[in-house]
Order: sequence, then structure tokens, then C-alpha cells
Amino acid sequence: MNTNDSTCPIYLDHNATTPILPEVVEAMVPYLTTHFGNPSSAHVYGSRAKAAVESARAQVAALLGCQPDEVLFTSGGTEANNLAILGVAQRLPSRKHIVTSAVEHPASQNPCLHLERAGWEVTRIPVDTTGQVDVADAAAFVRGDTSLVTVMLANNETGTTMPIRALADIARTRGAIVHTDAAQAVGKMPTLVDELGVDLLSVAGHKLYAPKGVGALFVRKGIPLGPVLLGAGHERGLRPGTENVASIVGLGKACELALRDMETEPRRLAGLRDRLWDRLRSAIPDLTLNGNPTERLPNTLNLSFSRVRGSAVLARAPGIAASTGSACHEGAESPSAVLLAMGIDAATALGAIRLTLGRASRSDQIERAAAELTAAYRAAIR
Amino acid sequence: MNTNDSTCPIYLDHNATTPILPEVVEAMVPYLTTHFGNPSSAHVYGSRAKAAVESARAQVAALLGCQPDEVLFTSGGTEANNLAILGVAQRLPSRKHIVTSAVEHPASQNPCLHLERAGWEVTRIPVDTTGQVDVADAAAFVRGDTSLVTVMLANNETGTTMPIRALADIARTRGAIVHTDAAQAVGKMPTLVDELGVDLLSVAGHKLYAPKGVGALFVRKGIPLGPVLLGAGHERGLRPGTENVASIVGLGKACELALRDMETEPRRLAGLRDRLWDRLRSAIPDLTLNGNPTERLPNTLNLSFSRVRGSAVLARAPGIAASTGSACHEGAESPSAVLLAMGIDAATALGAIRLTLGRASRSDQIERAAAELTAAYRAAIR
Repeated sequence: MNTNDSTCPIYLDHNATTPILPEVVEAMVPYLTTHFGNPSSAHVYGSRAKAAVESARAQVAALLGCQPDEVLFTSGGTEANNLAILGVAQRLPSRKHIVTSAVEHPASQNPCLHLERAGWEVTRIPVDTTGQVDVADAAAFVRGDTSLVTVMLANNETGTTMPIRALADIARTRGAIVHTDAAQAVGKMPTLVDELGVDLLSVAGHKLYAPKGVGALFVRKGIPLGPVLLGAGHERGLRPGTENVASIVGLGKACELALRDMETEPRRLAGLRDRLWDRLRSAIPDLTLNGNPTERLPNTLNLSFSRVRGSAVLARAPGIAASTGSACHEGAESPSAVLLAMGIDAATALGAIRLTLGRASRSDQIERAAAELTAAYRAAIR
Repeated sequence: MNTNDSTCPIYLDHNATTPILPEVVEAMVPYLTTHFGNPSSAHVYGSRAKAAVESARAQVAALLGCQPDEVLFTSGGTEANNLAILGVAQRLPSRKHIVTSAVEHPASQNPCLHLERAGWEVTRIPVDTTGQVDVADAAAFVRGDTSLVTVMLANNETGTTMPIRALADIARTRGAIVHTDAAQAVGKMPTLVDELGVDLLSVAGHKLYAPKGVGALFVRKGIPLGPVLLGAGHERGLRPGTENVASIVGLGKACELALRDMETEPRRLAGLRDRLWDRLRSAIPDLTLNGNPTERLPNTLNLSFSRVRGSAVLARAPGIAASTGSACHEGAESPSAVLLAMGIDAATALGAIRLTLGRASRSDQIERAAAELTAAYRAAIR
């Protein structure tokens, strides 16, 4: 599989996972081979590994605009969200109210649901037809006993971004802690924690051209947090287990590259993404755009065909690797809960496909993808 | 750092972490480069990744003698222990008694402590002077309301192995579930789950020549278990988060190699380890062996100097990478809790060093290590 090889399907599923950048693999390899030490070991094998982890911590911190000691490494975005949500609840058990959105990833939804079953009250802010929460709603929901406001920075299916800064300002006036699941946002848009006004922010390596199985949680100094996994005292006692050195090094490198290209790559992706939308819209009648047309990740295009299921179109486009954006369990296809929460009807939701671009995307791929999807659509409605 | 390069310290700290085997790295690289898909994706990038994960699951299962669908992948041994201990407690809340040993790793100790604080009763079986639990003690401790017996298969500091089969037989007569933390044992001795009689068994990749940040939990069919991390439905709903494909592939390969060499490598290591002990014992007076002389991992040698701290000897042996086996926090050195639990006095415990051999160990290294440790000892007592 090579994303630049024309015999392989064109990869338009970067929100599912990204290829690891060659520079990232190159940075990792020494830690998979010669520098194999355990960072907790007192000898030179250990100290070299420890130095690499701390260097990566500084690289992640630079992308987030925080201090290195405000970055904890985890096994991925899911664990980062669990640590943020369950970790705050553990330390603030007297403030049993959480505010979240109606369109979170299961990695945030399910920790909230778990707390709800354990006696917490969870308020889910609805979203408008573009997938955004209303700040006025949020202002009405956040209370004096709200411990945590947890809202994603950008939605994984539609790419719609949330008004996190405004939510954070509201939360702060009521003394609530603010967490954002930035798994999809990091590297695709600025994610400086002070500009966002957040106290906790989740990073997922494999959405950012780093490996799967590694992530990070920004924890602002002084924010009360307890551990979810229990063991030895790694990561300031908040995340036990021998550090995943090579993958942490990879995450650091990926953050360095994201920061380096923040001025250029998102703009390039938005240009390609908009061209893809223009091509498809001019060829296919009644296409609708799902998500916010402007406040959206630069790489994400979620659209609905009006007379056919998204899965039927993708099935006829074997040259394209994309997703319907909906969960597909054991053959039964159900409409996306995110699209339904936006007030989109079930038929339109089932007509959706998600096309997500990335560093591997080139303009010739976009032209070919538009042509193949158009042909697939025409075959599907026949 | 090269473990076969005579200019690098001789690596005798394989119980802290192992180098990744070249064959393991080779197996991983395609999944860090071309085969980067998300196993949940419906397209070919996804299906190729999913097939790799399932192939690795079969490799792990072969080493453990279980079915592939009885293997769950985790972020490491710590998470596997958490999932086993907290996962059973979650599903059997009416049986609030746990039996464990006095010498578990913090990754088991701390989940037990957490449950104790939440109202569970935890009985810790003491160990004898060789570090083994007494089966008669265990028989007296396991009760009708015992949900779980969790005892390590081999101790990380002394290498002493536990009579897990006998413990399991006792537990089963009272309807208790049996977990063993086999992080240090897997690959160093047979760990067939039916021979051990266990229901849950933890594996840590980086103790087994696979990468850090990956592990596995054997879960016997029908054993009640709840998730610790919450999110999407990966790993049969018991471990959410996009699968760490490359590292899982590495763990699979490492298990395959461990199985291949199970008849030869442990015996080779025991021979080298015993030679090291003989050399040291004949050169240094009053050395004591910590741990069981026969029921012990083949690669582990924990010994105490009688007149000097282990740390003082290691400080004078820069050509050797080993550990004292004791936790060292912020410069304050404290005697090993494992050795104290064995009834060893604090001075002798502070005299301990842990020398742990592995695939990188060669006989010339053993001779050099014996000579350097002897010289270091003599310098330290001067």
C-alpha cells in the first residue's frame, strides 16, 4: 500500500488514521533498535531513553504552547480522554455535574455515560445543523456544581470545529475545568492551549502522522487529576507503565513537523478539499455538505448523496479508500449519530460519505477521486 | 548502544526491559510504513491491518496454549493487570475478597489497594525466605466470597516462581477466578494457561523482546470481565482505542520466537547465570543468593554483598548495566520491599544487586562481568 502509488486506492480516510511520516519513522528506529533502555533504569541505557522521552515532551509542548511538564504521555486519544474525564471526577467528587456535547467521540461519551450511571449528572449541549454547539446554550447549562466541561475541538465525522474559547470563558466564570478532545484537530489547526483557554487537551498520535498506540494529555498546572490506570509512579504518578519510548519519540517528531508546516499544510489541504467539493458538486445533482461550511477542519469533506446510500457509492469506487462516517456493525448499517444529532434526516444521513485529505493527498488524486466518485454515483443510481 | 559492542556496558538488566529482536523490528516495519491502515476501516488499508492484528493474536495464543479469541491486546503489562483485577471486581461486586501475595509488582499491588480503599478485603499471602508463597497459607485464605486470586508467576526482582498451579487448584474449589501476572515469566519458562490452571494471564511486550507500549491479557472464555478504559468497541468491547497495529505485530512475532526457542534459550541462560554466580561466589566472600535457588527464572540472579551496598558496587562497575532491584526515589535509597517481605534484614537488602541475562548475553560477557563486579566490590569495601 503506497498512498502515492496509482495502483493503490487513493487514500481519503486520514481522519480514520494517517500514514506515519518517513521522518517520524526515521526518528523512531534508533529507539526500536540500539537505544532500547527503560527510562527508569539508572544506567546509560536508561538515561538515553529518558532523555528521548523528555525531548519528545518538549516537542509536544511546543505545538500546544504549554510547559513540557504539563504533557503526560498515554496509550492514545482514548486513554487521554478517559484520564481527563474520569481523572477530574475522581478528584472533585462533590461537584457531580458535567457538561459535554451531543456529538462527542465514544472515547469521551462513554466515560461520561459511566459517570452518569455512577450518580453524576451529565448535560449534553445539542448542536445546530452545522454541528456546532450554541454558546448561549452552554452558558445556560454550566452551573456552580459543574466540575468539567468536555467538548471536542473538531468533530471526527464532519470536521466542524467548536467554539471552545467561548465555552472555556463561560466555564471559567463558574469555576469549571475545561477539557477538549483535540484528537482530530491537532496538526490541522492551531491548538495553543492558552488561546483555546482549556485546562486539559487530548492528543492522538495516529491522527497526526505518528504511530497508533501513543497519545498525550495536556494538564494545566494545578488542575486536580487522579490516575485511571494504577501501578508504578511514571508520568508524575498519573500514568503508570514503562514509557512507550519509540512511539513517544515519534509523537514528538510528528508534533515538530506539524508546527513547522502549520502555516502552509492546512491551507493546501483546504484548497484541495474545496476543489474536490467543486468537482463533485458540478457533476452530481443535489449533493449536500454536512458540517459547517467555514468553521471546519481544512481536510474534511462530509457530503450526502440525495438518492443513494454512501455505502453504495463507495462500493462502486474501489479506487478510493474512504468511509461512510457511520458505524457499521455486523453488516447492519445505521445512520451516523452525529448527523442525526445535527437534525439531518436518516435517509440523508445514510447518503453520507466522509472524504478526509492529508499530507499524502495530491491534486491529481483529487481529480481522479472526483471522476471515480461521479462514475460510482451514476452506477449506483442506475 | 549495542549489547554486543564491547565499548558499551554489558547489559544485565533484561528484567527491566529487553532489546527488541531484529526479526521483531523487521516484522513491524511494514506496519510503520506501507500498511498503515486502521483495522476498523472497511477498505483494503483497513483489512490488511486487521489481518495483521489477528495473525499476531494467533501467535500470542500459540505461546499461551489458548484460543486466539481469548487474547486481548493492551498498552502493556500494567494495563493488563489493571484490566484483570479491576475488570473482575467490576463484574463480581458481591464477592468483595481478593487474595494476592506480599511481593506483587505495583501494577497489581495498586489496583488491589484501590479496591481495598473502596471496601474490598484484600489478603496478602506472605512469602518464605526464598520468596515463595506457601500453598497451605493460600488454602487457609481463599474463601467462599473470594472473587479473585492474583499472584505473579515469577517475581521481577528475585525471579522466584510461584506455585500457581497449586494455588489455582485451591481457588477453583472455592469458585474464585485466578489471575497471574506473567510479565516476567512469558518467554522465559512455559506459560501454558491450562497447565497453569489460570483464568487470566498478563503479558508485557517489552520483557519479551517486543516493543514497550504493548501487552496482552489472556481471558479464559466465560470469565466475567468489565473494561477499565471506556470508548469504542475494540477488543470485544473490553479495550477501546485504535489497535496499536505495528507493536501488536511485534508482540506476535516475539511470542513466535519465544515458542520456537523455549527448549534451548532458557537452558542456555540458566547455564550462563549459574556460571556468573559460581565466578562471583568463588571471588567474593559472604555473598548470599536472594530468591529460590531452583524454582526461579533461568535468567535472574539476585545476590547480596555482605559488607557494602549494591549501589556502591554498581557505581564502581561502569561497564555493567544492572540494577539494585530496589526502588530509588529522589536520591533516597530504600531497601527492596520484596526482599524485606522475604524476611531479609535491611542491611542485606541494601547490599543486593539484580543481574538479569537475556538473548544478548554471551559467555565472554559473563566472564568480563564477573571480573568487573569483583573488582568493583573490592574497591567499594576499601
